[in-house]
Amino acid sequence: MSNPVQLVPNNSLITKTPEEGRQLAVKMARLIIKITQPDEKVRESLRPDYANDASMLISIGQVVATEFATIAAANNYWR
Amino acid sequence: MSNPVQLVPNNSLITKTPEEGRQLAVKMARLIIKITQPDEKVRESLRPDYANDASMLISIGQVVATEFATIAAANNYWR
Amino acid sequence: MSNPVQLVPNNSLITKTPEEGRQLAVKMARLIIKITQPDEKVRESLRPDYANDASMLISIGQVVATEFATIAAANNYWR
Amino acid sequence: MSNPVQLVPNNSLITKTPEEGRQLAVKMARLIIKITQPDEKVRESLRPDYANDASMLISIGQVVATEFATIAAANNYWR
Amino acid sequence: MSNPVQLVPNNSLITKTPEEGRQLAVKMARLIIKITQPDEKVRESLRPDYANDASMLISIGQVVATEFATIAAANNYWR
Amino acid sequence: MSNPVQLVPNNSLITKTPEEGRQLAVKMARLIIKITQPDEKVRESLRPDYANDASMLISIGQVVATEFATIAAANNYWR
Repeated sequence: MSNPVQLVPNNSLITKTPEEGRQLAVKMARLIIKITQPDEKVRESLRPDYANDASMLISIGQVVATEFATIAAANNYWR
Repeated sequence: MSNPVQLVPNNSLITKTPEEGRQLAVKMARLIIKITQPDEKVRESLRPDYANDASMLISIGQVVATEFATIAAANNYWR
Repeated sequence: MSNPVQLVPNNSLITKTPEEGRQLAVKMARLIIKITQPDEKVRESLRPDYANDASMLISIGQVVATEFATIAAANNYWR
Repeated sequence: MSNPVQLVPNNSLITKTPEEGRQLAVKMARLIIKITQPDEKVRESLRPDYANDASMLISIGQVVATEFATIAAANNYWR
Repeated sequence: MSNPVQLVPNNSLITKTPEEGRQLAVKMARLIIKITQPDEKVRESLRPDYANDASMLISIGQVVATEFATIAAANNYWR
Repeated sequence: MSNPVQLVPNNSLITKTPEEGRQLAVKMARLIIKITQPDEKVRESLRPDYANDASMLISIGQVVATEFATIAAANNYWR
């Protein structure tokens, strides 16, 4: 039981639409936080820290933008 | 009603012009903040925090630059 | 009058030279700050904050580097 | 015995699946921390620092996203 | 006399070697700081701030890495 | 004696293996710090600052990830 969390939902970067690709980016970013801090209670207790802090909200946007760049390239930008 | 916010306006990265692509980058960056902090009142209360802070304004620029890189590539840089 | 600020000067990423591309990167970075903090007086008041702070000067360099990467690719690196 | 730590497991960026690629990204990120701070006791003592800090959890997500971008490109995005 | 500082030395990203490309990355990063803080005395006064601060030294490394990525791609990685 | 430090070991981004590429990424990142703070004693004095600080260890990982992305692309990902 080394790593019970699936880090890439559906084990694929391919999505039907940009919208789904964006949702995948958000999920993948969250899953890294989940494996780094596996305790759900702690994660929940941290939520007000970042959800009410402009600087951290911006940083979350940076991570999602980076994940999305990879997913968009994988999908040839859904052209 | 899992995720009522559309993360990619028009569900497409393709835009007619660089200007529209840039506006899309700004919107996509803001939408990630919106789903992370869904309470509009809280988001509004955070506005003076980042709009009057040089460091956060720069960080917002970083996120937009990263989103725009993806959108520009998707559009073959509007060459 | 939704967004009176033009975010991409000349609505193009194509420039004649790397030097002009670099100047465009600087301008595009500044324009994002302009639309996020539209009040010119506030922006001017923030200038000493970042111009005298090594950490923020470095962060500005990071944003410009990221914008320039996109512009350089758009111009096939002016080879 | 200059560098006993292997920085790239299996000395390859190629993986069978996106899931394995994501796990490799996490491992490669951790291995850089390992060679920078080789003392396991110190690393363990730092764990509560980052695992209970929203800002650092986000930063870890940023590093993994960057490593994963390279691994995904190496694997042609497992298309 | 709008912008007397040349932002891209020799107005080209093409260099003979990786070493010269790396030096160009360092110069281009520094030139952005120069136009943002044009006062040489202030820049000199900031030097001990970043040269003795581990965190800022790392951030400088991040900017140079980003600039170098663009220059290396422009030169087809000097293959 | 303008710049006695060689910034790119062997003046090449090409390596035989991913492992060697990763080691090159670490070295190149360190060499930027070396030219920014040339005093070895100061650099040594900063070591405990970053080696015992989770946030800085993560930032170092970010720089290495960025350098490695360039080196991996230069080597066609050692496919």
